[in-house]
Amino acid sequence: MRRDRLLVAVTLVTLLAADIHFILLPRLRTWYQLPRESCSCTDSSLENGAAATVPWTTSQNMTEQGSKLEWLFRHPLYNIRLPELGPEERLLQEDELMNYCKRKVSRWERLKKIYIEAAAASNITIPDHPVTFDPEASWLQFHLGINRYELYSGDDSSIDRLLRDMQTASVISADFTPDEKALKGACDCSQVVKPSGLHLKLALKLQDFGKAMFKPMRQERHEETPENFFYFVDFQRHNAEIAAFHLDRVLDFRRVPPVTGRFINVTGEILYLTHNEELRSVFFTSPANNTCFFAKCLYVCKSEYAVCGHPDLLEGSMSAYLPGLSIAPRISIPNPWIRTYSFTGTEEWEVNPLYCDNVKKLYPYNSGNRLLNIIDMVIFDFLTGNMDRHHYEVFTKFGDDGFLLHLDNARGFGRPSHDEVSILAPLTQCCIHALNKAMTSHRIKRSTLFRLKLLAQSEYRLSDVMRASLSRDPLTPVLTEDHLQALDRRLGQVLRTVGKCVKKLGEPQVVITDFAESSRVTTGNR
Amino acid sequence: MRRDRLLVAVTLVTLLAADIHFILLPRLRTWYQLPRESCSCTDSSLENGAAATVPWTTSQNMTEQGSKLEWLFRHPLYNIRLPELGPEERLLQEDELMNYCKRKVSRWERLKKIYIEAAAASNITIPDHPVTFDPEASWLQFHLGINRYELYSGDDSSIDRLLRDMQTASVISADFTPDEKALKGACDCSQVVKPSGLHLKLALKLQDFGKAMFKPMRQERHEETPENFFYFVDFQRHNAEIAAFHLDRVLDFRRVPPVTGRFINVTGEILYLTHNEELRSVFFTSPANNTCFFAKCLYVCKSEYAVCGHPDLLEGSMSAYLPGLSIAPRISIPNPWIRTYSFTGTEEWEVNPLYCDNVKKLYPYNSGNRLLNIIDMVIFDFLTGNMDRHHYEVFTKFGDDGFLLHLDNARGFGRPSHDEVSILAPLTQCCIHALNKAMTSHRIKRSTLFRLKLLAQSEYRLSDVMRASLSRDPLTPVLTEDHLQALDRRLGQVLRTVGKCVKKLGEPQVVITDFAESSRVTTGNR
Repeated sequence: MRRDRLLVAVTLVTLLAADIHFILLPRLRTWYQLPRESCSCTDSSLENGAAATVPWTTSQNMTEQGSKLEWLFRHPLYNIRLPELGPEERLLQEDELMNYCKRKVSRWERLKKIYIEAAAASNITIPDHPVTFDPEASWLQFHLGINRYELYSGDDSSIDRLLRDMQTASVISADFTPDEKALKGACDCSQVVKPSGLHLKLALKLQDFGKAMFKPMRQERHEETPENFFYFVDFQRHNAEIAAFHLDRVLDFRRVPPVTGRFINVTGEILYLTHNEELRSVFFTSPANNTCFFAKCLYVCKSEYAVCGHPDLLEGSMSAYLPGLSIAPRISIPNPWIRTYSFTGTEEWEVNPLYCDNVKKLYPYNSGNRLLNIIDMVIFDFLTGNMDRHHYEVFTKFGDDGFLLHLDNARGFGRPSHDEVSILAPLTQCCIHALNKAMTSHRIKRSTLFRLKLLAQSEYRLSDVMRASLSRDPLTPVLTEDHLQALDRRLGQVLRTVGKCVKKLGEPQVVITDFAESSRVTTGNR
Repeated sequence: MRRDRLLVAVTLVTLLAADIHFILLPRLRTWYQLPRESCSCTDSSLENGAAATVPWTTSQNMTEQGSKLEWLFRHPLYNIRLPELGPEERLLQEDELMNYCKRKVSRWERLKKIYIEAAAASNITIPDHPVTFDPEASWLQFHLGINRYELYSGDDSSIDRLLRDMQTASVISADFTPDEKALKGACDCSQVVKPSGLHLKLALKLQDFGKAMFKPMRQERHEETPENFFYFVDFQRHNAEIAAFHLDRVLDFRRVPPVTGRFINVTGEILYLTHNEELRSVFFTSPANNTCFFAKCLYVCKSEYAVCGHPDLLEGSMSAYLPGLSIAPRISIPNPWIRTYSFTGTEEWEVNPLYCDNVKKLYPYNSGNRLLNIIDMVIFDFLTGNMDRHHYEVFTKFGDDGFLLHLDNARGFGRPSHDEVSILAPLTQCCIHALNKAMTSHRIKRSTLFRLKLLAQSEYRLSDVMRASLSRDPLTPVLTEDHLQALDRRLGQVLRTVGKCVKKLGEPQVVITDFAESSRVTTGNR
C-alpha cells in the first residue's frame, strides 16, 4: 500500500513540476518579459569573415530591468544621431500640411452633407460622425516626422500613439482603395495572371481624419502557402503586414509605415459607413449567417473569394497611410531583380552571372547609395520570405539618395520551413570583382551589418526581440513560433553570405562605413 | 525481480492483444469481409409509424459466407424481377448502336491522321494509339443495357468490367468537356456567381473507344466545405462522385452511371495526348516542379484554380459517359424545388407551405410516377448532402415515366456533421392532406421505403455496406468514417420523416406499392 501511495505522490509531483515548467513559467516570462536565456555566448555557427565583432557589445546594461527589445533599442547602434535636419530634409512643412488637411476636412464635410441628404432621399440612414481635426493628431505627427533618412525616428512617441489610434479610433468611412478602383472595368483578357480575386483591401477613415489601409485575414496563422502557388498569386496575409512593420523597426530601418492588428465590425464599421454604392452592393449574408463581402466583382463575384465576419467581427491589419501623392509625390521604380510574372519566363538576372555589373552601370545604381539600399531591402525581404518585390517606391523630394519605402509586405511569412535564397541574388551576384575599377564596389552598409550581427547574438536574438515586439499587438501571437525560428535561421544565412563575400574580396571591398562611430554617446529614450 | 518480470510480461501481452484487436483483426475483416457484428436487433430509435416491418427480413442466409454487401444484394428485395423488356423499353438497339460507333471510329481515325500530320509539320509528336473497336466492350454493353427502369441491371457483369476498364485502359485522347467549351468566350458580367474557376473536368477517350469524364481531386478527404460557402460554389469532389455511384447501387436505384477512382498521369495521359491546342496551352510547371493545368482561362488564368500532379500523377474520378445525345437524347428539367442561385433570393417553396399542391397540379407531376421519382432523388441527395440539384435529366425515349438520372453528384459529402434537412422539403411539404381529392397523394414508393428500412438494420447497416462497396475502389478509403456514420444518421432521419407522415395521414395515403410481392422468388446472382 505504502509503495502505491509513493507512486501516486511521485506522479502528482511530476505533474506539478511539468505544469510549473511548461505552463506557469512560460506564462510568467511572457507577463514580466523575463529573459529566456542569460547566456551571452556568441553564435559560433556564423562565419566570422565579416568585420570581426560588433562594437559596444559589452553587456553593461544587461542587469537593468527590461526586455531584450528594450535593451536592443537602448543599444548605441540603435541610437546613432542623425545629422541636424534642414527644412529641405523634411518631407513636409507644418504650415503646408495643416492647410492641406484643413481644406481636405472641409471638402469632406461638404461632400458628406450632400451624400447624407441624397441617402436620406432613398431612405438610407448614414450615421454622421463628426471629424475632430486636431493638429496634434498622431497621424499628422507621423507625416511631419518623415525625413530624408527615415519614416520616423526611433524615439518618436507619436508612432506608439498612432498604433493605439489605429487600434481604437472610431471608423467614420470606408471605401475601396485606389488600386481596387483601378481594377474596375479593366478587362484585359491577355493578362495571364493578375489581378487575383484573393486580393482585398479597404481604406478606412478614422475619427481624427487619419486613414488606414485594412487588409482582412485570409488564412490561419499555421497555414502555409501551398507548394504549387506562384509568389504572385499567394495570399495576402494581414499578419505578415504587421510582422513586417515590427521587423523593419527591429532592424532600425524604419521604412515601413506603422501597422497594427484590429478587429473590424464589417457591418457597423464598413457597410453602414461607406459612401460607395458599389462597396455596399458586394455585401451578403453567408449560409452560416455571417456578414461577408467580395473584394471586387471584377467579372463575376466569386464567393470563394469573399471574406466573412464572425458574425460581424473580422480580423485584419491596419496600415497607416503615407501623405497623399499630391502633397508628397512618390515614384515607383521596377526592382532591377524583378521576377517574371508569367509561368514560364526567365529574367536576365536569373541566367546572367554578370548581371550586377550591368545594373551598376545604369542610373541610378551607378552612384550614391541606391544599390546599398537595394541590399538592405533584399535582406529584409529574405528574412520575411517575400518574393513579390516587383517595385519599390521613393519620395521624389529626396532625390536619388532618399531611402526606399518597404511597402506591401503581405506576401511574406508564407512558408517558415523554406528559405528562398534567390531573394538574396543582389547580394550574392554583386559579390564579384568589379570589371571596371571605377565602379562602386561596396555591397553592404556597415550599420546594417553590425545590427544584423547584434541580432544574431543570444542577448538580442532576432526571434526573441520580434516575439517581444509582436506581443504588443492586439492580435498577438502574430507569427507562429516556426516563423520566429525561421528569422534566426535566415539571419544566419545572410551573415554567412556576407562572410563568404568578405573572404573572397576583403572587407574594404564589401562593407561601407555609413556612420561616424563618434556618435555612440546618444541616449535615445524609448 | 520476479514481480518486474511479471510486469514486463503483462505489458507485452497487453500490447500484443491491442495489436491483434485494433490492427490485425480489422485488417483481416477487410480482407475476408468478415461481418463486424452478428447482432440482429432492429434499430429501436426509428419511429415505426411507417409500414411496420420489411418483408423477408429473416436471416435465413446469414450463415452463408460473404459480406453484408453480398447478403444485401442477395436479399429478395434486391431481386425483384423486372417485367420482360420489349424492344421499345430498351434505350438502344444493338445494330443501331454498333453502326453509330463504327462511323464514329472511322471519323476519329480520319481526323487523327490529319491532326498527326499537322502536328508533325509543327514538330510536335503525337503518339498514335490505335483504337481497338470490340462489340463486346464493356462500355458498349453498358449502353445496350440501359432500359426504361434502370441504367443497368443488378446482375449485369459488364458493369464490373466497365469499372475495371476505366481503371486500367490506356487513355488515347483528352479534351475539355462540352460544358467547359461552352464557357469559352462567355463574358456575361451580369452573372453574379457562375461560372466558378474551381470547376474542372476533362473528357478522356480510352483505348476501346469508351469515354470517361475525369474530375480531379481538389480537396483532401478530411477537409470540409467552409461554413461560409454557398452550395453552388462548393468544391467538386471526385470522391463524392465515386461514393454517389456506390450509394445509388446500394439503394438499388441504379440511376448513376458507373464511376471509379484512378490516378492519371497529367503529362503522359493528358498533355501529350490531347488534340486540343487550348488544353495544351493551359499546362505549366509549378514552383514545386509539379505539372499543373487550369480548368479554363475564362478571363484570366488564376493559378490558385490550377490542379497539379505529384509530380505528374493526379488522383481523380472517372465517370462513364452515357450514349451521345444524338443517339439517345435526354432532356434537362428544372427541379421544382430548385434553390436560388443568388445570394439573397428566395424560391417559392421556401416560403409557401402549400407549394407541393401547386407542383402536383402541374404537368408532369400531376400524374404518373414523376413526383415519386423526385422523392427518391431527394432521399438520395439528402443522404449525400448534395444541395446542388438544380436540374434532373431523363431520356426522352421513355417519356414521362422514365427514371430520373442522378448525374453530377460531386457536391455531396461536403460536411459530415451537418444534415441539410431542407433537401427533404419535397417529402415534408407533400405530407399534407391534398386539397383536391383527385390528386395523387402518395409520397414514397414502397420498394424504396423497404430498402431504406433494410439498410437501417444492423445486418445490412448502410455504413457497413457502403464501406464494403467502396473498399473495392482503387482510391479506398473513398469516404472518411465520419461521412459513413453520417449516412446512418441521415437514413434514420429519412425514416423518421416518413414515419411522421404515416402517423399523420395513414399508410395508404403515404406509401404506394410499386411492385408485386409474388416476385420474391427470384434468385439473381451477383
